[in-house]
Amino acid sequence: MKLTVREIADIVSGVIVGKEDAVITGVSGIKEAKSGEITFIANNKYRPLLKSTQASAVFVPRDISNTVDASLIQVDNPSLAFAKIMAIVGPEPVMFNPGIDKTAIIGKNVVLGKNVSVQPYAVIEDNVEIGDGSVIGACVYIGHYTKTGKECLIYPHVIIRERVKIGNRVIIHPGTVIGGDGFGFATVKGAHHKIPQIGTVVIGDDVEIGSNVTIDRARFDKTDIGNGVKIDNLVQIAHNVYIGENTIVVAQVGISGSTVVGKNVIVAGQAGIIGHVTVGDNAIIGGKAGVTKDVPSNVHVTGFPAREKWEDMRIQAYSRRNPELIEKIKYLEEKIEKMEKRIMELYGE
Amino acid sequence: MKLTVREIADIVSGVIVGKEDAVITGVSGIKEAKSGEITFIANNKYRPLLKSTQASAVFVPRDISNTVDASLIQVDNPSLAFAKIMAIVGPEPVMFNPGIDKTAIIGKNVVLGKNVSVQPYAVIEDNVEIGDGSVIGACVYIGHYTKTGKECLIYPHVIIRERVKIGNRVIIHPGTVIGGDGFGFATVKGAHHKIPQIGTVVIGDDVEIGSNVTIDRARFDKTDIGNGVKIDNLVQIAHNVYIGENTIVVAQVGISGSTVVGKNVIVAGQAGIIGHVTVGDNAIIGGKAGVTKDVPSNVHVTGFPAREKWEDMRIQAYSRRNPELIEKIKYLEEKIEKMEKRIMELYGE
Amino acid sequence: MKLTVREIADIVSGVIVGKEDAVITGVSGIKEAKSGEITFIANNKYRPLLKSTQASAVFVPRDISNTVDASLIQVDNPSLAFAKIMAIVGPEPVMFNPGIDKTAIIGKNVVLGKNVSVQPYAVIEDNVEIGDGSVIGACVYIGHYTKTGKECLIYPHVIIRERVKIGNRVIIHPGTVIGGDGFGFATVKGAHHKIPQIGTVVIGDDVEIGSNVTIDRARFDKTDIGNGVKIDNLVQIAHNVYIGENTIVVAQVGISGSTVVGKNVIVAGQAGIIGHVTVGDNAIIGGKAGVTKDVPSNVHVTGFPAREKWEDMRIQAYSRRNPELIEKIKYLEEKIEKMEKRIMELYGE
Repeated sequence: MKLTVREIADIVSGVIVGKEDAVITGVSGIKEAKSGEITFIANNKYRPLLKSTQASAVFVPRDISNTVDASLIQVDNPSLAFAKIMAIVGPEPVMFNPGIDKTAIIGKNVVLGKNVSVQPYAVIEDNVEIGDGSVIGACVYIGHYTKTGKECLIYPHVIIRERVKIGNRVIIHPGTVIGGDGFGFATVKGAHHKIPQIGTVVIGDDVEIGSNVTIDRARFDKTDIGNGVKIDNLVQIAHNVYIGENTIVVAQVGISGSTVVGKNVIVAGQAGIIGHVTVGDNAIIGGKAGVTKDVPSNVHVTGFPAREKWEDMRIQAYSRRNPELIEKIKYLEEKIEKMEKRIMELYGE
Repeated sequence: MKLTVREIADIVSGVIVGKEDAVITGVSGIKEAKSGEITFIANNKYRPLLKSTQASAVFVPRDISNTVDASLIQVDNPSLAFAKIMAIVGPEPVMFNPGIDKTAIIGKNVVLGKNVSVQPYAVIEDNVEIGDGSVIGACVYIGHYTKTGKECLIYPHVIIRERVKIGNRVIIHPGTVIGGDGFGFATVKGAHHKIPQIGTVVIGDDVEIGSNVTIDRARFDKTDIGNGVKIDNLVQIAHNVYIGENTIVVAQVGISGSTVVGKNVIVAGQAGIIGHVTVGDNAIIGGKAGVTKDVPSNVHVTGFPAREKWEDMRIQAYSRRNPELIEKIKYLEEKIEKMEKRIMELYGE
Repeated sequence: MKLTVREIADIVSGVIVGKEDAVITGVSGIKEAKSGEITFIANNKYRPLLKSTQASAVFVPRDISNTVDASLIQVDNPSLAFAKIMAIVGPEPVMFNPGIDKTAIIGKNVVLGKNVSVQPYAVIEDNVEIGDGSVIGACVYIGHYTKTGKECLIYPHVIIRERVKIGNRVIIHPGTVIGGDGFGFATVKGAHHKIPQIGTVVIGDDVEIGSNVTIDRARFDKTDIGNGVKIDNLVQIAHNVYIGENTIVVAQVGISGSTVVGKNVIVAGQAGIIGHVTVGDNAIIGGKAGVTKDVPSNVHVTGFPAREKWEDMRIQAYSRRNPELIEKIKYLEEKIEKMEKRIMELYGE
């Protein structure tokens, strides 16, 4: 890579504050960046580093125009601008050429689209359909009658069981299991009898799913992941869950059976949501929160049991005042005793 | 499927309230059900939907006899009745025919029972025994000297290490690891030296284990999962843990080393239990609870640190009253000051 | 195995209290041990079992010298002494002979060290380097340009993506994913655009990583796991995290992006650490703790939000006193009302 600040600003429609002719040869984080590299500021926490960064150029929001050593490139979305440049200058991505490896096992009546790549030791069962341009990684297992859309990237060792439907441009990272049986039993005299899980999983377009995630198939009907949903690593999504468009589910979250999560929701890391509740659109579920009832739209809940953030913070803050309260009450009690005695004196008791 | 309400009631020994001759052609959830479908009510939360459901028939507990549009079929256990009908009318389950795929690798001295199915790219090491009628899925790895019982269903990509014993009719979902080393180190001057984990894992009959679960082998002796235990996805069971019969362990639970969990216990989602404690029979550990000491039998604990549910709820409830308390104390303080002044006046001070 | 207490004491440089000529034929836990077996006491909780154990010998710390039936062997570190003996007397470990299985797929320009073992169905992509004496388990996937050091033990079904660097003597348990994409998106008008994750993962020497762990590759630069770090099962380590030497990360912990964890830290089970914070050397993060800000060195934090342990315990303790407080305040209020009336009487009001 060898681009001037001017050339980079043109690629991302940015406005330059500072030198235009500095030559950029690499990308990096704002702390690690060296002279000749470009970086960016997304998280406000890092703004003070603008002064100390060794980077030669920094993507910044439109409202930053400090005079610093680095050239600033003002853009609407510094992360996105940086991502564009990273894609240009990063190491060449690993590509998997179209074609079916001779060790891949392809069942009967399988329909493979154009330019599909099936890597070594993949196992594709009967009646599967794979859309144009998709990559099926090494050792991936795809069960009977499952369909994937176009341009999907299924990383090695993903397991997708039978009759699952996957949209277009879906990315699934290694070790993830889609369509395992939902956890359902009917208990009779202490013994748990398996309830057949005859439903399926439907995954929309542009979904990305992290590593070692589990998304269970529905008892009947479907577990449903909307378009544009992004799921991080080690997340558990139980049977019959519905997740709306563009919702973000961070690592190690668990969503219990039959729960409905709206659109554009953020469920932060290690949060849990019980079964059979509804989380409204645009809600935010804080990290480690435990949701035990419906969450309205546009509400930010935190803590366990999860409450609106302001309420949770107030309870937390007052809890910290407990020791002080106990001291205060003791002090008032003593005062009251003294007053009682003085009043008794006045009464001549 | 095409069965009358009468025919269905006969299969499950149910009592019909309403029309007997309605024809049922499918199964569904109570919310999604359409005319011609049968559904059920297990969770009391859904009872009000009886009036609005479009289903033509509903399995209900014996004590429900409302007059609604749908025919009711009263049974002892609506979930179980529904499961029976689902198994009859659901999509034909995927079957794996007996036989050893030519790509499976079978070690020396391996004993395969009758009608065993070994799927593509499975690797079975030396001295393994697989019981009659078991299915070993694609890419499954089974380590040296491990034994499985009869009619086990080991899904693709399960990894079972050496010297593990698995009972009859055990189901293990994809990506689960049985018999990984326990997490044990002896720390000398800051460096952690691995303690050999020479024990094993023993799994009883009729156990079901979800996807991407980890059950570690014992340091010595065994990690022991009792008959009829059901384990959900992404659960961690550490070395030397003992779990009693018919206990249920919900998704993302972690049970630390050497802990003993009794029979018929329920450990709800994302709960954690520290090591070296005992949880009594029939106990219930709430979702996200953190168990830090022994739990007696028949007790329901919640929260972190986990306490009996009534106590935890009382503490929670009173915590919410903290802001009110602080207001009240401020109010009393002002009153006391006024009284003090008036008493001083009376004393002429 | 057949060793006298004397012979065992000599192996571990221990001092015998009791009979020297007892013959030991096996190892076991203190509760399960039978006559003829040797056990140990590491956890103080088990000290009382010294009297009742059936073991014929027990490794104990130097300060224990009770007279009990068993012979005691005093050592500096009972766990470590026991581990040494276990390695001698345990079942013979499974060994994987050097050599490349004929079903393994080895890419172009792959450099395999001396005495490397590559097991069935392993897939090693182009330009990989594997150090001397390493074992690559069945179905392991190793991506392009990845390098492992000497004497690594990579268990079956581990997935390591491209350009990862792994040190010497690293153990990685089954199902773990190293180098999956970090979870990073730039959101424009509600849609989440993938930010390329062009960095990598670097793992030091003598690291052990449990089963079904996920360690994401960095956005740029690297996710960095220091020498001697030990990671338990189902742990999530996000992009650009740094973990210092000899830190221990227990099962189901999640560490968010760009967080720095110092040396010799203990992060206990199910704890979570938010992104962009620093945890100092020798800190202890309690089980289930939720770290929301920097943790200084040498500090023990617990709870959520995580606070210093003494403070968290004090808040917990006072919370339990809330019901009592409310009763007390009610009582004082009644007293105050009575006093007010009496004062009014004195004033003739």
